[in-house]
Amino acid sequence: MNFCSDNTTGVSPEILDALTQANTGTAMPYGEDELTAKVQKRFNEIFECETTVFLTSTGTSANALALDALTPSYGSIYCHKDSHINCDECGAPEMFCGGAKLITLPGPHGKLHPGELETALAATNDAVHHTQPAALSISQASEAGTIYGPAEIHHLSAVAKEYGLYFHMDGARFTNALCTVECSPAELTWKAGIDVLSFGATKNGAMNAEAIIFFNQKLAREVGYMRKRTGHLHSKMRFIAAQWDAFLTNDLWLNNARHANAMAQKLKCGLETIAGAELYFPVEANELFISLPENTLQALEDAGYGFYRWHDAGSPLIRLVTSFNTTEQDINGFIQTALEAS
Amino acid sequence: MNFCSDNTTGVSPEILDALTQANTGTAMPYGEDELTAKVQKRFNEIFECETTVFLTSTGTSANALALDALTPSYGSIYCHKDSHINCDECGAPEMFCGGAKLITLPGPHGKLHPGELETALAATNDAVHHTQPAALSISQASEAGTIYGPAEIHHLSAVAKEYGLYFHMDGARFTNALCTVECSPAELTWKAGIDVLSFGATKNGAMNAEAIIFFNQKLAREVGYMRKRTGHLHSKMRFIAAQWDAFLTNDLWLNNARHANAMAQKLKCGLETIAGAELYFPVEANELFISLPENTLQALEDAGYGFYRWHDAGSPLIRLVTSFNTTEQDINGFIQTALEAS
Amino acid sequence: MNFCSDNTTGVSPEILDALTQANTGTAMPYGEDELTAKVQKRFNEIFECETTVFLTSTGTSANALALDALTPSYGSIYCHKDSHINCDECGAPEMFCGGAKLITLPGPHGKLHPGELETALAATNDAVHHTQPAALSISQASEAGTIYGPAEIHHLSAVAKEYGLYFHMDGARFTNALCTVECSPAELTWKAGIDVLSFGATKNGAMNAEAIIFFNQKLAREVGYMRKRTGHLHSKMRFIAAQWDAFLTNDLWLNNARHANAMAQKLKCGLETIAGAELYFPVEANELFISLPENTLQALEDAGYGFYRWHDAGSPLIRLVTSFNTTEQDINGFIQTALEAS
Amino acid sequence: MNFCSDNTTGVSPEILDALTQANTGTAMPYGEDELTAKVQKRFNEIFECETTVFLTSTGTSANALALDALTPSYGSIYCHKDSHINCDECGAPEMFCGGAKLITLPGPHGKLHPGELETALAATNDAVHHTQPAALSISQASEAGTIYGPAEIHHLSAVAKEYGLYFHMDGARFTNALCTVECSPAELTWKAGIDVLSFGATKNGAMNAEAIIFFNQKLAREVGYMRKRTGHLHSKMRFIAAQWDAFLTNDLWLNNARHANAMAQKLKCGLETIAGAELYFPVEANELFISLPENTLQALEDAGYGFYRWHDAGSPLIRLVTSFNTTEQDINGFIQTALEAS
Repeated sequence: MNFCSDNTTGVSPEILDALTQANTGTAMPYGEDELTAKVQKRFNEIFECETTVFLTSTGTSANALALDALTPSYGSIYCHKDSHINCDECGAPEMFCGGAKLITLPGPHGKLHPGELETALAATNDAVHHTQPAALSISQASEAGTIYGPAEIHHLSAVAKEYGLYFHMDGARFTNALCTVECSPAELTWKAGIDVLSFGATKNGAMNAEAIIFFNQKLAREVGYMRKRTGHLHSKMRFIAAQWDAFLTNDLWLNNARHANAMAQKLKCGLETIAGAELYFPVEANELFISLPENTLQALEDAGYGFYRWHDAGSPLIRLVTSFNTTEQDINGFIQTALEAS
Repeated sequence: MNFCSDNTTGVSPEILDALTQANTGTAMPYGEDELTAKVQKRFNEIFECETTVFLTSTGTSANALALDALTPSYGSIYCHKDSHINCDECGAPEMFCGGAKLITLPGPHGKLHPGELETALAATNDAVHHTQPAALSISQASEAGTIYGPAEIHHLSAVAKEYGLYFHMDGARFTNALCTVECSPAELTWKAGIDVLSFGATKNGAMNAEAIIFFNQKLAREVGYMRKRTGHLHSKMRFIAAQWDAFLTNDLWLNNARHANAMAQKLKCGLETIAGAELYFPVEANELFISLPENTLQALEDAGYGFYRWHDAGSPLIRLVTSFNTTEQDINGFIQTALEAS
Repeated sequence: MNFCSDNTTGVSPEILDALTQANTGTAMPYGEDELTAKVQKRFNEIFECETTVFLTSTGTSANALALDALTPSYGSIYCHKDSHINCDECGAPEMFCGGAKLITLPGPHGKLHPGELETALAATNDAVHHTQPAALSISQASEAGTIYGPAEIHHLSAVAKEYGLYFHMDGARFTNALCTVECSPAELTWKAGIDVLSFGATKNGAMNAEAIIFFNQKLAREVGYMRKRTGHLHSKMRFIAAQWDAFLTNDLWLNNARHANAMAQKLKCGLETIAGAELYFPVEANELFISLPENTLQALEDAGYGFYRWHDAGSPLIRLVTSFNTTEQDINGFIQTALEAS
Repeated sequence: MNFCSDNTTGVSPEILDALTQANTGTAMPYGEDELTAKVQKRFNEIFECETTVFLTSTGTSANALALDALTPSYGSIYCHKDSHINCDECGAPEMFCGGAKLITLPGPHGKLHPGELETALAATNDAVHHTQPAALSISQASEAGTIYGPAEIHHLSAVAKEYGLYFHMDGARFTNALCTVECSPAELTWKAGIDVLSFGATKNGAMNAEAIIFFNQKLAREVGYMRKRTGHLHSKMRFIAAQWDAFLTNDLWLNNARHANAMAQKLKCGLETIAGAELYFPVEANELFISLPENTLQALEDAGYGFYRWHDAGSPLIRLVTSFNTTEQDINGFIQTALEAS
């Protein structure tokens, strides 16, 4: 069993079924099809407002296109130092934004703190010598597997708005966060001040399906051109729309995320009893960061379990990610192996 | 029936089956999976040489990443004035190449002529005031639905090499061309001087699956970073690889293209007998450009047939594109309707 | 004597004097000095309106910064196929605009024709597949040494405005044009529809001094950041401002240009009498394009006269450029040598 | 008297003389003139090696063009968090490098420490998810007015070379550093591992004159095109070359810097005796960072002395910069005013 990431799994059967059902007749390409229109409406329902939506197939493109819409080339994007956009996208935001600058901030548990942000922004001015604050970006769930509640987002938003920044949420694991917080999608996004959300389905059971949701619709004006120009407008779009349609039907998205989250909690409960085990971050979504004794880790690796040492080969700290199809047996087996070695 | 484009159809059943079969167990993400490795080898077999391959999901990204590998930001890309990279990608090559320049050339039947290219290149020099010739790009089949034979490609290549240009082929309909020419894939590409091929499967029965094939492997050195940086590295890559695997198995790619080509010939034979019909380009792949009497066009539109007036609303010239699943009945029905109105 | 270009000469004595006079005391850097403020006001007087001005030291930067202010990265800039921005700036507009596209149009005597522009624009639409028309750029005087009158500019502007394009004038030789047309600077620019002018002093007697004049001031909002970000904000700005101050004082700019123009007319009158001489373009500013017998050209080259064969080494067509300090003797000597060889 | 920066002063009389002397006869433009060739040779003499030199007129362009030559768009540039390239160039390196990333490191006294660099680089790998370490850049003198000795540079170079990074020096105040270290220019640059130097003359008595010196000449191959493409190739280049020629003649560069450095030392000696005065950094070039009592600062401001509160309006920490033409009287007056208020 592979706990390396939630993208090592396949897809939900409902997703495959949806692809099969979408494969009938002709449909206009490039998003001019009926399924894409249907999905746009569905997003409006789910978020309880008018949105402008762009479907794409990778999280990096969703983030970079969203950030480009918020940021001029001479702009700065404020983000956590460990954020995906800073560490794991090979400079995609910089490329899409024409060479903008990411200003990285520290913060406990992978999360930005309003005070830290305020301090950073208060030190800026509008002189031409400096890149200009343009956007704030947070990850929900964060790279540490932690969650921002609506109040936390609202506080960050208040600082962002005070300094004229737009607010982006990287929601590669948005549904996992939503299921933990137990508020409405609207409350976790635009009602708390989010202008644009990169909404991920891939890590939660879809094939390669992401969406950029603009709550602040005026910011979306140029995105259609930029999506095409960056090669992210798919000709057979109906097959991405079909995934979103299935994903947002019968609570598939919520059920998948709830299951992954529950498996992470189960894993946490099993592992934290091991002598020497130490959790690095609160377990709030579908990721655990835990350090375990070396012989335990060896035993798990020898048993064929996949996971990453964090961040380097010999580290006792590991990351474990659960997914929509992680089974209780997978968890039990992992815990059993760990306990026996400890 | 929709003759607007070969991307208005769905996908081959074999492609869907392959997705289902790929949906078992875990697989490392981002192309580190076994299917991607298998497909890389399959490309080597098909092209009878070592290649470096990058899978992606759109033709525009395949073209732009390929061209970026050939072209510095101060470089020029020589292409046909009607080429997809010039007209239909919203400036993606310019964006990916950091602001390179496309030098467009005319040419009958949508094809570049070596003499025209030579004249253009002979007028250049290496002074710093001018962008520098870096790449030649042709479309195979061309935007006019015509084909370059190996000798034609070789002649263009000779000019390109004389002036130090690399040679790119936009093969969104490469298989359609290959089936017409009836030579080996190697003869139509690297043996004729092609350095890199954008090989399309999407228009020929796949879902959203393209491949960049570097025959000149040293040019591929930085592409992995650029693919990630432009958001085109898919996390669940196995589902793109699976499509290619099925596509290149049991001649699916060739059978699909042969069928589409045959349907285009059938359509041509049926329509050219109409009084006033005029073919604009030779029909060599799966596209017809034909002008028909206005009442014939009206009748076809009234009957619900989809096609584009070329290039503007009232034009008598239309484009008809056949695909892997166009049926003989579709063709017969279209011809019948046209004949009855004439 | 060198007729290669008007940038092979030195500078007017008044320019050197101004540099010396500016070299007293301290001045705030980066354009926060008094001379820069004075020059801004002077531009407002000369153009009879409020302008926003950015000084720079090269014509290429003036053009590229101006065009960037008008053009999104997915935009197109319409220009003459022989224009400096297309042929002689190594892709600077493409670089500054983030990979925008130059759409080149033909036109007699180096000038764009409204009908040609209208035809090109009428063929565009707002589909995301295509770069979007954003700016029109003309050179005044043109690369052929010809002039647009106010009515011609107005006609072009009418087409541009109809399609939503902004209008840029590359005025590297603006003063030469102005002296020929004999209208006011306002009539030749904003009153005829120009949004932004690259106003050159370098070719007309200054050292390295150019100015970007925004008549449409809302377009200037981001230029300060872009000027810095592209490295074109000079720290000791007073020494560029001082040149402009002297240039615009006591009609130095007008006198310099009038003289250069007069010398070009004198040269034309002397050379056109030679058997076999053929003028290629009307002589309207300070440039002649003329073909002369090869033995005449040889004699001139042997006598040490500098000029360019246009465009290639053996061509009978040459370009002759006069400047603010070309003397009557220079002209007489050139003509004499030519006549003797003919 | 203005101590805000060394770019609030004018220029050395020798520089003005050189401009006047260069203003005779014609000269080929764009650096094809004799003075530019002469200066290239002079740089070779001064640095005791073959170099490739590009003259420009701003420090930002010199830095950004140099860094672009070292860094692919997916590359990272390692630099001090307070460096000019990170804080004061509005993202020019990011723009010129096509969206590269600056990785900022802390370090006492404005200087990078090899250990800090090694730690940062050791945490990198060549996975496509991350921008790739490409260049190291230091400022000499640093933004804190401190100096790297040859041994320090060599240690940094050793780390850089181990990880395959090229090494850039921002030498806006290179001569000030050189005069403090008292080694040869070669020892302070290429012999210590520097690949390319941005060599500034502007802050040390020139008008707007900078030079990019490539010791690693193979890296210079594309710079000519990039200089043109970014608008930094001056047509009347002889007037930049003339400044360099004068600057490097009769030790003008060294004498100017030595004087500025000496004035800084004098200022330091006078101010550090004030009760409550605190030096923030060692005074090693021509800058002091010192905190003084508020009433002292008020008295100095009331007396009309110009200087910056560092970094914000009410700060007791100020920056004082001396220059080639700061006089002993200026220093004595400043100290006197400060002492009287304390």
